[in-house]
Amino acid sequence: MIIRPHLHWFRMLLAWRGSVLPRLLPRLFLIFCISIIAVAAHDHLLPVSLNLNTTAPFSLIGIALAVFLGFRNNASYDRWWEARKLWGQLLNESRSLTREVLTLPSRPLPKEDTQEFFAALSALPHALRHQLRKSDPTEDLTARLPQALFNRVIVSRYKPATLMLYLGEWVQRQARAGAIDPMAVIAFDRNLNGLSDVIGGCERIASTPLPFAYSVMIHRTVYFFCASLPFGLVDSIGIFTPVFAVFVAYTFMAHEAIASQIEEPFGTDDNDLALNAISATIEDATRDLLGEASLPMPKPQPEDYALD
Amino acid sequence: MIIRPHLHWFRMLLAWRGSVLPRLLPRLFLIFCISIIAVAAHDHLLPVSLNLNTTAPFSLIGIALAVFLGFRNNASYDRWWEARKLWGQLLNESRSLTREVLTLPSRPLPKEDTQEFFAALSALPHALRHQLRKSDPTEDLTARLPQALFNRVIVSRYKPATLMLYLGEWVQRQARAGAIDPMAVIAFDRNLNGLSDVIGGCERIASTPLPFAYSVMIHRTVYFFCASLPFGLVDSIGIFTPVFAVFVAYTFMAHEAIASQIEEPFGTDDNDLALNAISATIEDATRDLLGEASLPMPKPQPEDYALD
Amino acid sequence: MIIRPHLHWFRMLLAWRGSVLPRLLPRLFLIFCISIIAVAAHDHLLPVSLNLNTTAPFSLIGIALAVFLGFRNNASYDRWWEARKLWGQLLNESRSLTREVLTLPSRPLPKEDTQEFFAALSALPHALRHQLRKSDPTEDLTARLPQALFNRVIVSRYKPATLMLYLGEWVQRQARAGAIDPMAVIAFDRNLNGLSDVIGGCERIASTPLPFAYSVMIHRTVYFFCASLPFGLVDSIGIFTPVFAVFVAYTFMAHEAIASQIEEPFGTDDNDLALNAISATIEDATRDLLGEASLPMPKPQPEDYALD
Amino acid sequence: MIIRPHLHWFRMLLAWRGSVLPRLLPRLFLIFCISIIAVAAHDHLLPVSLNLNTTAPFSLIGIALAVFLGFRNNASYDRWWEARKLWGQLLNESRSLTREVLTLPSRPLPKEDTQEFFAALSALPHALRHQLRKSDPTEDLTARLPQALFNRVIVSRYKPATLMLYLGEWVQRQARAGAIDPMAVIAFDRNLNGLSDVIGGCERIASTPLPFAYSVMIHRTVYFFCASLPFGLVDSIGIFTPVFAVFVAYTFMAHEAIASQIEEPFGTDDNDLALNAISATIEDATRDLLGEASLPMPKPQPEDYALD
Amino acid sequence: MIIRPHLHWFRMLLAWRGSVLPRLLPRLFLIFCISIIAVAAHDHLLPVSLNLNTTAPFSLIGIALAVFLGFRNNASYDRWWEARKLWGQLLNESRSLTREVLTLPSRPLPKEDTQEFFAALSALPHALRHQLRKSDPTEDLTARLPQALFNRVIVSRYKPATLMLYLGEWVQRQARAGAIDPMAVIAFDRNLNGLSDVIGGCERIASTPLPFAYSVMIHRTVYFFCASLPFGLVDSIGIFTPVFAVFVAYTFMAHEAIASQIEEPFGTDDNDLALNAISATIEDATRDLLGEASLPMPKPQPEDYALD
Repeated sequence: MIIRPHLHWFRMLLAWRGSVLPRLLPRLFLIFCISIIAVAAHDHLLPVSLNLNTTAPFSLIGIALAVFLGFRNNASYDRWWEARKLWGQLLNESRSLTREVLTLPSRPLPKEDTQEFFAALSALPHALRHQLRKSDPTEDLTARLPQALFNRVIVSRYKPATLMLYLGEWVQRQARAGAIDPMAVIAFDRNLNGLSDVIGGCERIASTPLPFAYSVMIHRTVYFFCASLPFGLVDSIGIFTPVFAVFVAYTFMAHEAIASQIEEPFGTDDNDLALNAISATIEDATRDLLGEASLPMPKPQPEDYALD
Repeated sequence: MIIRPHLHWFRMLLAWRGSVLPRLLPRLFLIFCISIIAVAAHDHLLPVSLNLNTTAPFSLIGIALAVFLGFRNNASYDRWWEARKLWGQLLNESRSLTREVLTLPSRPLPKEDTQEFFAALSALPHALRHQLRKSDPTEDLTARLPQALFNRVIVSRYKPATLMLYLGEWVQRQARAGAIDPMAVIAFDRNLNGLSDVIGGCERIASTPLPFAYSVMIHRTVYFFCASLPFGLVDSIGIFTPVFAVFVAYTFMAHEAIASQIEEPFGTDDNDLALNAISATIEDATRDLLGEASLPMPKPQPEDYALD
Repeated sequence: MIIRPHLHWFRMLLAWRGSVLPRLLPRLFLIFCISIIAVAAHDHLLPVSLNLNTTAPFSLIGIALAVFLGFRNNASYDRWWEARKLWGQLLNESRSLTREVLTLPSRPLPKEDTQEFFAALSALPHALRHQLRKSDPTEDLTARLPQALFNRVIVSRYKPATLMLYLGEWVQRQARAGAIDPMAVIAFDRNLNGLSDVIGGCERIASTPLPFAYSVMIHRTVYFFCASLPFGLVDSIGIFTPVFAVFVAYTFMAHEAIASQIEEPFGTDDNDLALNAISATIEDATRDLLGEASLPMPKPQPEDYALD
Repeated sequence: MIIRPHLHWFRMLLAWRGSVLPRLLPRLFLIFCISIIAVAAHDHLLPVSLNLNTTAPFSLIGIALAVFLGFRNNASYDRWWEARKLWGQLLNESRSLTREVLTLPSRPLPKEDTQEFFAALSALPHALRHQLRKSDPTEDLTARLPQALFNRVIVSRYKPATLMLYLGEWVQRQARAGAIDPMAVIAFDRNLNGLSDVIGGCERIASTPLPFAYSVMIHRTVYFFCASLPFGLVDSIGIFTPVFAVFVAYTFMAHEAIASQIEEPFGTDDNDLALNAISATIEDATRDLLGEASLPMPKPQPEDYALD
Repeated sequence: MIIRPHLHWFRMLLAWRGSVLPRLLPRLFLIFCISIIAVAAHDHLLPVSLNLNTTAPFSLIGIALAVFLGFRNNASYDRWWEARKLWGQLLNESRSLTREVLTLPSRPLPKEDTQEFFAALSALPHALRHQLRKSDPTEDLTARLPQALFNRVIVSRYKPATLMLYLGEWVQRQARAGAIDPMAVIAFDRNLNGLSDVIGGCERIASTPLPFAYSVMIHRTVYFFCASLPFGLVDSIGIFTPVFAVFVAYTFMAHEAIASQIEEPFGTDDNDLALNAISATIEDATRDLLGEASLPMPKPQPEDYALD
């Protein structure tokens, strides 16, 4: 995710880092070349005429395309924002569970008991992040989990769910020891269900892309439209065709490119969610409630404005 | 559902499998032929002139149609995504119920008791899938349910609901035996209500299509528009008419075709939900929490990129 | 509601039953006549010229109208779908209550007691349907309720709410008799609140139409637009004007007509919800959980594709 | 709110009462005059030419404006419908609380106790309505509340919240008297939280208008557009300009006017919510559950189709 | 936030305070100058011709841009409204917790105990506001919190969460002292979870802007479009170009500017949420339930129509 200080309206026009412009440059150059060909063909510099004489059909298809692209954007953004909400709920549930461990037991718990709970709780966002990004969780889990729990989690196929089960077992242990009364067990159960919803929700988004036919069709329409546009513009705007065609192509291609990035919000593209930073925040927020200092390792800082 | 590795922007233009293009080819060829006729009529190759001289009315109707089609898409996609969310909730509830069986009882349950519960729970997604797809559940249910329960379920008219009732009876049995306290019964009840919502939600989507008049009207407008468009384009873009008319027709027809596929998300079209794969994942996730190995039968793998 | 088997794309173009076309024919014929007049006036067959020379203002108003109509459609469809969801929730709550009656009591209840409960529960969807459609519930209630309860319900002004209260009283009776513990009372209470939300939600949709000024304004704009369109088209497309004007009028009028039908989802128009069929399904689903056969009276079957 | 019987499509074109047309007439007349000036200037009846020669820029701005206006409408309608849902929830919570008072106590309550509760409950919608409309609640509260409670409520700054607190105190009194067990207290608590959400939700909508800059900007754009449109139309449609300009102005101005009315749903404009009628319905529904007759004062009836 | 009395439609056209017009004036002046250049170049006053001869490509890009801008607006407004809802929920939860403290304990609590609770509760909105606006909470917290709690909160990194934990500890203290039974603890727990959701929701919105690439791309498209528009208009509308170009630029730039303001709803721009006023209202509403007078310091009043 790109975090930039609020930019002056003029400087924003020139922003480079974090925009999709760098990635699109080669394609835009291609459109530029096609425009040059269109101008040349129109001015009889080329032996063939490819002139379409009219912008009207392009208006029709361009505006229709904008409507369809608007829908695609909306759906992609909804996925991205739902993913962010799920990670926000993960923070909320972590805080609520922390509060419950600190305040619901009917008698003070031994420190090693609560430490076990918070170890598993603080490992959960990291386990979920590694699952969603298909990366290796060993390092993060080793650093946080006691050996026995680590051994159990590392061989499970759905590591965050296993941690969630462990939290439930911890509650059961305290309940059987008489430290947590049956009502409080239900309160824990409610928040563990919440964790379950978060984990399952993220897995759902990660495993179910937008219908493929949809993405393909929009993609094709955008590129065919942009590639043929110069031939429609050249008769009315002549040598301004390259500027205009590249501008329109930028608008449509950039929309499609951003939608395609944020559609998979758990990746590591510039516009994906900064799961590293969010996991660190969740852990830090839990430690703050426990009165502990910030993590020894620094919180991720934006590098060149980018958080990952 | 089509699961494809992330494609390079250029290769995506050429994607065949999973796009609706193959299915639309005959209709697009029809539009192509109509365009040829329009060109021929315009160039006085045919004795009649069908020339409309103007693209303007087509812009009007085309853009209005894009707006209406945009709404249809939105509604269809919402059904598809709600269906996916319901199946995601089925996973969440299964995990929560699993955790509750393992951690809420006040004393360890005999293994055969928990096995009965998990048998019914793991059969539930399969029963629901077969009900939604109107396919025969005998094989999947035989493999998972004890004989007595199978006999009861197979004659019921709403099999997933019967399984859900059985889970409730199991909880009652344990409660009467004193293994589950009244508070924990309530926790189970909450998640069984959740299952009830999932089952009922899927039945609702499956039994209530979009208003028929709506689908018919959009369908008619799209095809009439595409079939008459060549006559509107031919005066301004001449021999480019076939290319353009087919392109516009592809955009509109593909939108309509995809919307009509995902509107019934429980079918087995390419863009429908991969209920087989999701059921297997739910079962696998439950088994993982129980510390059991993956299913002996392999998880469904995409064939030619398609999961069903 | 119209339930049709999946139609081939070509046969769908010709669908008659369930489309709004039959109802619109007279109005479309009017537009056709206006178009003839426009053509005649333009071709100097009439002594006056009504020619507008241009399609441009019609594009402007037509596309703006499509956007506004899109909003109206969206709002109407949301009402329709929310109504369907409420009836789906009614099924879910009925199933959950059935499960709770069968599994939550701490000791088996006498059969006549549970029969009383299920009588009231199965009468509820019928009572709600008759209230929403302002039809006479006597027959359906007599067939399902014991005489005393029938007498009480039939004089109440909000019959479904009275049935819901009766269900609460039944729970209280069992609780005072010691058959249902206080925790289980809470579980029932939660689902009775759910019933209350369903009943109130349906009443809200039925009693609050879209703002009237909105419907009137859209209606006027659509008809004025359609009636004046031929004069704008005639100069550019000449004798094709009648075809085109009728086509555009069909698109806009049909949208408006469908939106106006589904806006009141509890009516008995073709595109309204099939409350008869849904009530029967809810009752059937409850009977299935009780292990009872389907209703003696057959479930409503589509007649000429229509369920009501 | 305007409640009209379902109108024939033709009579709906002429509807006067409840449409915003009467209010817009002076402004539309202004547009008519501007159009006359535009025609006169174009026909050289005026010494200056104000002719813009083209409709194209107006199409651009008009369609863009339709999109923005569509968004404004959507946001306003969402506020209106959310407000209606909150009042619907008020009915639901009132019914649920009534059911709970009648069925949750472990022993029959003295009639004067329940009467106190229902007095406060039936006064609540009236207190909320008067707060939202900034009107004087004295009369409605005097008629429903016992003197002591009235004295307390009338001096409080947030009257509905004070009534809600009183309901909580009533529950506490019964609980301390042993008539309501701790579990049932929680059930009441849940519904009192629901009341709290309703009250707070209404206060939120009433105190937070749409961002002012937004409303101003849309308003300006609509009126500037409508006022300049005649000069853009006159060259292409000549003497039809006044008809068309007034028609387009009606469409855009009416949209803006309706959006601006329903944006504040608690006012007393024609299209605002009929809070009087809804409050009466809530009270009537509660009385019906108690087996009491309808209110002696008649339920508000539409006058000239309008409920307030 | 700008709170203005309902304005007459004509006076609204001239509103200055609270509109984004003042801020945009320099940029609009720039567009005006560009328009002058375009007119001059077209009229051969300049040695070069920059004339594009046609509005068509601008219609295409302008309408597409309106669709994209509409999406951006929608997303920004959703953030703003969700933020407002979260603060509304903060009021609701505060009221519910107040009611619970006053009515759930099984015996009257000593006044100093409840005062501790309400001190923390009334400090919470202020702590949240200062966190979201990154301002210094010392003054507001000192005025409300007892010294010990202040010392603890001021060093914590997430102050509202620490206050929420303190409320949980208070409940635990009362529960261990026997004043609050286990059921009531659960009721408190539910509302404390609600507080947790509010705090986390606000932090989520504050820490996650819209995808940066999105904002940049829309921004660039708007400004490039507005800057080149005069060259497209000048051929058709001549000397009216400056008026029209500035008008269109105002519409698009103002949309973009407002969207960019409300996207960060916790700032202190004119259109951001009036967190000062809302915090004061929350505190005042709590005091009202306690029967206390309004705060000695006056509630924030709009200055020049602006609340902050």
